[in-house]
Amino acid sequence: MLRLYDYLPSGNGYKVRLLLSHLEIPFELVELDIVKGETRTPEFLAKNPNGKIPVLETEDGRYLPESNAILWYLAEGTPFLPADRWGRAEALRWMFFEQYSHEPYVAVARFMLMHLDEEMPPEQARLLAEKQERGYAALTVMERHLATQEWFAGGAYSIADIALYAYTHVAAEGGFDLTPFGAIRGWLARVATQPGHVAITQR
Amino acid sequence: MLRLYDYLPSGNGYKVRLLLSHLEIPFELVELDIVKGETRTPEFLAKNPNGKIPVLETEDGRYLPESNAILWYLAEGTPFLPADRWGRAEALRWMFFEQYSHEPYVAVARFMLMHLDEEMPPEQARLLAEKQERGYAALTVMERHLATQEWFAGGAYSIADIALYAYTHVAAEGGFDLTPFGAIRGWLARVATQPGHVAITQR
Repeated sequence: MLRLYDYLPSGNGYKVRLLLSHLEIPFELVELDIVKGETRTPEFLAKNPNGKIPVLETEDGRYLPESNAILWYLAEGTPFLPADRWGRAEALRWMFFEQYSHEPYVAVARFMLMHLDEEMPPEQARLLAEKQERGYAALTVMERHLATQEWFAGGAYSIADIALYAYTHVAAEGGFDLTPFGAIRGWLARVATQPGHVAITQR
Repeated sequence: MLRLYDYLPSGNGYKVRLLLSHLEIPFELVELDIVKGETRTPEFLAKNPNGKIPVLETEDGRYLPESNAILWYLAEGTPFLPADRWGRAEALRWMFFEQYSHEPYVAVARFMLMHLDEEMPPEQARLLAEKQERGYAALTVMERHLATQEWFAGGAYSIADIALYAYTHVAAEGGFDLTPFGAIRGWLARVATQPGHVAITQR
């Protein structure tokens, strides 16, 4: 059986759990607390030297880090990966956009607010504001795309949508207001009604 | 003919130029100066709403942003993309690592030093030191992999090597000292002797 090293609140981990649910593939979930340093142990670093979840362990004991690489690996040969070359290129275009221009801002703002114990010191507040500004820029790029297209790549729901949905649907937890983003809200609703959809913290 | 919107000092653009040279595919280079805001014009934003080079324009007038998505698109069906499913997954694993854990530090440190006119203010110096610390962490992950393997994915030179080579081979321009990274230096030398290799600012 596949084994997934993961942290339940992680959107990156959720991407993989969501696709596994769509594909009806059973898996063993191994939960690690990233806040307590459980991804920095020698044992885990042997699985992923970069010290990050999620990591997929195959049935023959190989390890695959990077959420979007795992999505691709699981989606090959399924309807969740576009069948044509241009569609695959567009899927990757949005998945790299997600990791470079979206996750570092939308997800990191959420992480900062989720782990805020007390009042935020001024330097942290400035950093959060910067993350939010760049996060809004990424949301604006998405909104522009979704104004004319239902999905991100290949004309159908794919791993590109899953990659972007993971942190966009919880953007409010990072202080983002999606009210002005009507096309994004419509797309979020479409994603949530796909067969086999699960919630982010659902085991 | 393919058209590439690019900025010559960009490692992200260089990835695409290097692969096009290996594949002996002719292309038209359209140079834009990112420092002068030439990627923020309405005309360019119509090609890539995210306002970044490189962007590939196909012969039938479609636009593909994101350097690593362009690499994948061009490499499909060639020896530069691993032929097996696991090799492709590993290639993507390293390409997402490059965009998330390497480029934002190794490339950004280089950008900061390249565009430094005068003495660096203390806040910028602190930011640079942080970029360098995280850049060294990425280099350490690479060194660990290359200590036991010649290439990053699929047992052969691939787009995963091209993606990581682009900014690693000019890491010194970001203040990184590669002397202790013997495995990386050996790999850089292997990449540089591949047929069709070109230098970063070679047109």
